[in-house]
Amino acid sequence: MLNFELQNPVKIHFGEGQIAQLRKEVPRDANVLMLYGGGSIKRNGVYEQVKEALGNRNVIEFGGIPANPEYSKLLEALEVIKSENIDFLLAVGGGSVIDGTKFLASAALFKGDTPWDILEKRRPTKVGMPFGTVLTLPATGSEMNSGAVISRKETGQKLGMGGPGLFPKFSILDPTVIRSIPQRQIANGITDAFTHVLEQYMTYPVGADLQDRIAESILNSLIETGPKVLADQTDYKAAANFMWCCTMALNGLIQKGVPSDWAIHAMGHELTALYGIDHARTLAIIAPRHYQHYIDIKEEKLAQYAERVWNITEGSSREKAEKAIEKTEAFFQSLDIPTHLSDYTDQYAGTAEKVRTALEDRGWVALGERQNVKPDDVQVIVEKSY
Amino acid sequence: MLNFELQNPVKIHFGEGQIAQLRKEVPRDANVLMLYGGGSIKRNGVYEQVKEALGNRNVIEFGGIPANPEYSKLLEALEVIKSENIDFLLAVGGGSVIDGTKFLASAALFKGDTPWDILEKRRPTKVGMPFGTVLTLPATGSEMNSGAVISRKETGQKLGMGGPGLFPKFSILDPTVIRSIPQRQIANGITDAFTHVLEQYMTYPVGADLQDRIAESILNSLIETGPKVLADQTDYKAAANFMWCCTMALNGLIQKGVPSDWAIHAMGHELTALYGIDHARTLAIIAPRHYQHYIDIKEEKLAQYAERVWNITEGSSREKAEKAIEKTEAFFQSLDIPTHLSDYTDQYAGTAEKVRTALEDRGWVALGERQNVKPDDVQVIVEKSY
Repeated sequence: MLNFELQNPVKIHFGEGQIAQLRKEVPRDANVLMLYGGGSIKRNGVYEQVKEALGNRNVIEFGGIPANPEYSKLLEALEVIKSENIDFLLAVGGGSVIDGTKFLASAALFKGDTPWDILEKRRPTKVGMPFGTVLTLPATGSEMNSGAVISRKETGQKLGMGGPGLFPKFSILDPTVIRSIPQRQIANGITDAFTHVLEQYMTYPVGADLQDRIAESILNSLIETGPKVLADQTDYKAAANFMWCCTMALNGLIQKGVPSDWAIHAMGHELTALYGIDHARTLAIIAPRHYQHYIDIKEEKLAQYAERVWNITEGSSREKAEKAIEKTEAFFQSLDIPTHLSDYTDQYAGTAEKVRTALEDRGWVALGERQNVKPDDVQVIVEKSY
Repeated sequence: MLNFELQNPVKIHFGEGQIAQLRKEVPRDANVLMLYGGGSIKRNGVYEQVKEALGNRNVIEFGGIPANPEYSKLLEALEVIKSENIDFLLAVGGGSVIDGTKFLASAALFKGDTPWDILEKRRPTKVGMPFGTVLTLPATGSEMNSGAVISRKETGQKLGMGGPGLFPKFSILDPTVIRSIPQRQIANGITDAFTHVLEQYMTYPVGADLQDRIAESILNSLIETGPKVLADQTDYKAAANFMWCCTMALNGLIQKGVPSDWAIHAMGHELTALYGIDHARTLAIIAPRHYQHYIDIKEEKLAQYAERVWNITEGSSREKAEKAIEKTEAFFQSLDIPTHLSDYTDQYAGTAEKVRTALEDRGWVALGERQNVKPDDVQVIVEKSY
């Protein structure tokens, strides 16, 4: 097991009816900016519950934060924060709204020249404006971690940020919100959470037995609960498990003491930038090819995964690893997530070179748990994903 | 899944050499009271590492905190805290030293008549004196939770306390401390952590699939790693897994969203009070009989445990449950932990009545996940444990 530091102070309120906890969690005298996305919260009852719980607090609303939260839109919200003396942010949405809110929590107190420096110059946020979240779309885990990814159309950039000042003060997870999520987004959430776990697990053994088992627990639970949620969105038990799995997949716990990969995400981000493919779907396109490409160095963990997650007990270690990759791809497909780039665009020729060039242009960051994912590897992996 | 609230702000530093983190974690201008137990830290190198990391801070030492931390001894430490203007506590020890330190963190700021009220009148501690811990004996999980159990010889009481003000600011977990722990205490730690998980898991199903699997992960890891640690205390991987299992067993995560039992602990505490039997060993005495007594209402979870933890796939649900209880008892015995009261004392006659009476005299608290453990049940369970 590698040495690690762990601290996660987020307060979670989990369960039906918990949106009412806003009443005690948001300071009574706060000037609140309530942030949300495309307005689905106005159709599914969440908006009314939030407004009712906030009571007579001073609340200004800022809607329209898009998927892949866009810098220029967030700058508009930053203006509101300043002009209206906002001192508390409330994200009501999925990972994009929460990530956008994290950017604002940092930018509101940022002393540098331009808030873009937070992303481009990788300035960790030690203190941010306090904020809470009401999660409406389980997937990214942003509700219980201190990281965010922000996009900037103008420059084609999609950059990460984070720091101990960006943990939500609280997050409210009410599984009944899942009833009104489109099936496509539920499937994306399952795939996103599943791949989050894989990125932190499918590396090489370091004897972190408990972390491995907890990672496998999340994978097993997603395999069990995912199809149930898709079959019946009113199945509260399944929805609750799905929601908690997504949070636990990326709240930092399973990455402690182990190496992590994250190369699938790096390649996937480029497919989103090029073709606008949903983030989770890019992961399903890349992951099987990535694991096939690195089967030599990941064989031991792939075989362990085969046994403990897919109950593959026959065959050699290599055969188990191969079968596990097949099972993984088949699982994504069973969720109605196509796993080849050509399922999403006819214009896929040349994508491998484009992804390679894009990553090189950004200044190549060492990828993979052994930092051995090189430009040539990326090109091969993406090309095989056509 | 039941509704739940989760917040655990403890910062963990895990790994070899991490005691040096005291240098940055303890405030530079603090007046520190360093608390420890019988002095083993002076023989195993921990004392020197702690003192070196604390540098030239103002540190007063208070040693001699016994197992089952004793109120009268802690009152002596409380005097030192007041007379020396102590403003930071550092526990260097196992669960007893940490629990004692939690009592002091609460008592130092307590406004009531007598600090015993914190325990007897069950006053939750909202704000305590800040404290950190250096864990020297994995077992109780106290290093990452906000609860404590304090004993008072004078009255024969052993009472719990807690509250959000009693989370350590930080805890340092260096698995190399395990090299010098007596085998008996390692076996106790494995048994204690194993039973902590069982108390939160062996109830009835509520569809909390992920929590169940994480609980099973800890059990599986303890079964795998426990014998390895006992066979070779210098096996760092095994020691690290053992240590992290103990923390994860009682840091609050697996109890969220599920019912919990804790009747085994209630009965076990009385055996410690009566005969001075090590806490963990009392759990190993009671647990098999408790599960046998409640096999009807716990059968479903016992059978799940049989399958997922002990790989018992043959037989009816009842047969699996029976075998799982046998396996559990055999596991404790394999750690050289005798599982009958008569292994510890010849004077066991009448114990069942004494335990029943003691629990009744304390004002019967509803025990068990269905609050259906009655005085008659306790008497039967303890009698069968002879």
